[in-house]
Order: sequence, then structure tokens, then C-alpha cells
Amino acid sequence: MNYKDYIASIVDYPKKGIIFRDITTFISNGEVFNASIKDFSKYAKEKGADVIVGPESRGFIFGCPVACELGVGFIPVRKPGKLPREVVTCSYELEYGENILQMHQDAIKKGQKVVIIDDLLATGGTTEAVIKLIEKLGGEVVGIGFLIELEEECNGRDKLKGYDVMSLIKY
Amino acid sequence: MNYKDYIASIVDYPKKGIIFRDITTFISNGEVFNASIKDFSKYAKEKGADVIVGPESRGFIFGCPVACELGVGFIPVRKPGKLPREVVTCSYELEYGENILQMHQDAIKKGQKVVIIDDLLATGGTTEAVIKLIEKLGGEVVGIGFLIELEEECNGRDKLKGYDVMSLIKY
Repeated sequence: MNYKDYIASIVDYPKKGIIFRDITTFISNGEVFNASIKDFSKYAKEKGADVIVGPESRGFIFGCPVACELGVGFIPVRKPGKLPREVVTCSYELEYGENILQMHQDAIKKGQKVVIIDDLLATGGTTEAVIKLIEKLGGEVVGIGFLIELEEECNGRDKLKGYDVMSLIKY
Repeated sequence: MNYKDYIASIVDYPKKGIIFRDITTFISNGEVFNASIKDFSKYAKEKGADVIVGPESRGFIFGCPVACELGVGFIPVRKPGKLPREVVTCSYELEYGENILQMHQDAIKKGQKVVIIDDLLATGGTTEAVIKLIEKLGGEVVGIGFLIELEEECNGRDKLKGYDVMSLIKY
């Protein structure tokens, strides 16, 4: 199965010069979606994941089935105003403005082994912020899995040095 | 297993008089999360689901694992500006302002049997909009599953008359 065949590439979206990689065509195919979850789960199991963390909202699409496949918990990382209890916060700069991410203060237990799952590794800014949140709570990031890595356009792995990173599709 | 024991209830959040039902404590428990997915999957299988639809973003948390468990596709319903190809749109009124939801035009094939999965049935406004989108594309809504139904405070089922509705937890 060539995963790339199931990703729709939209030229000049959301703006000129950008090729948007659309995962909706991938997940609408049950066989393909399921195969990717099996691959992620194998990886997370090998890394000894106690818990899966995924950022809002496309991280939920892949992270939640992986958590269920392994029978471990899922911890969402969310934008401000979404989590009702005490949170930890991390902000990072975007091209214009900044992005703020939060986790519940009690989401990770000290020493827990965490695998992060998300759809896309571009610049790595989001993942870097997610790592900071997990480590602030005493969790150990033992692996990071992406459906797609934009290897040619971005240097996302530079920001994630020292961490184990895998991706199922590379552009 | 009493599912209710794993939901955190936050009094006066996000505003006075509201009890917020927090699912993060539920999904952080792998055994509990997984059991709910098994229940949803049994329901969706009985209804003959060809595809699972879930609205952004908590619908992804439950809908995606169900799709993977059954080996069928998952179709996301999203806020405007998130889907890169041609979309169908439905808007509905909120207490203040309106909410707009979209699906890709080619997301559902005519005659496909659809089960909608979401975390919460409150007023039913979101689900009603999701049904309209699915039916606009020629899909048949054969079932709707919620983790939580706010039976006492809201009359969500009134808006969903004629559809098969199930919920795992009732308040």
C-alpha cells in the first residue's frame, strides 16, 4: 500500500506557493486509515508508550485510534479556553502572531512514557511546544509519530533533535 | 464499569449555572476509553454503517477509533476554512451568533449508510446541522451515538426525531 496515493495535494492552498496535503481522502478509506493506525501502534508499542498525546484537532484523528489499539489513555493538547480544569501553558511564535497550547495539569503522571502522534511535521513548532508541556509535567517523550513529514520544504527535525521521530509519508 | 465515574463534572464552567462534563478524565483511562469504543462500534455495526461522521473536534476523539475498529472510513465535519476542496455548508443559530459547519462535497457517496458519533448531545443543534450536510450529499443517517446526553437540562432528542439515537451516559 502506497500511503501517498491517498493524500490529495492542493496547489496554492491556503495561499499561493503552498501545496496543502489533505488527509481527508486518506482517512475516508477505511483500509488505508486502519493500516496507518496499525503502523503507528506498532511504533508506539515498541517505544513502550504508557500514554498517547495528540494536539487539537488533527492529532486526535490519529492519536485516539492508536491509544485504543494499545489500550492506553489519550491526552489532548488544546487551544486556550477548551480545558476546564487547571492547565499548563506553552506559547510559540508563528509567521504572524503566536499560538498557545494547553494541557491539564494532572494529565501526565511523573515518569510516564509518552508517544506524541500528529498528522503533520512542518516547522516543528507545535511539536516542540507539546514536548515542553509534557516535560513540564514530568513525562518522558519516548517517541513522536507523524503521518506526513514535509522534509524538503521544512526542517522540522532540527527542532526535535534528541527525540525519536518517525513519519509514514515524506514529501 | 460505570462510565459516569470517569467523567469530571465542573460546576459553574464556562459560566455560572452550567455544569461542564469533562471527558478528558474518561479518555485518559485506556480501559474505559476502549470499552466505550467497543460499545459505539457494536452499535454502528448493528446499524450497518458504511462510514462514520464526526464533528470537530471532540467528535474526532470517539468517531475515529470507531471507524478504525470497524475498518470503515471517517469523515470529519469542520468549521469554515479548514477543508481545502469544494464543500457543502450548513449554519445554525447559537444563543449568541451562529455556527457554521462544512463537509467536503465528495465526502459521502449517494446511498451510503452513515453513523454520526459525537461526545455530547445538548440542544442537538450541531447534530441537526451534521444530518443536513450528510443528507444534502445523499447519505442516509442510520444511527447517532453520543458519549453523554444531557437529558434533564436539554431536549436534544426533540430535534432528532425520526433518527435512531443512543447515548452511553445520561445526566
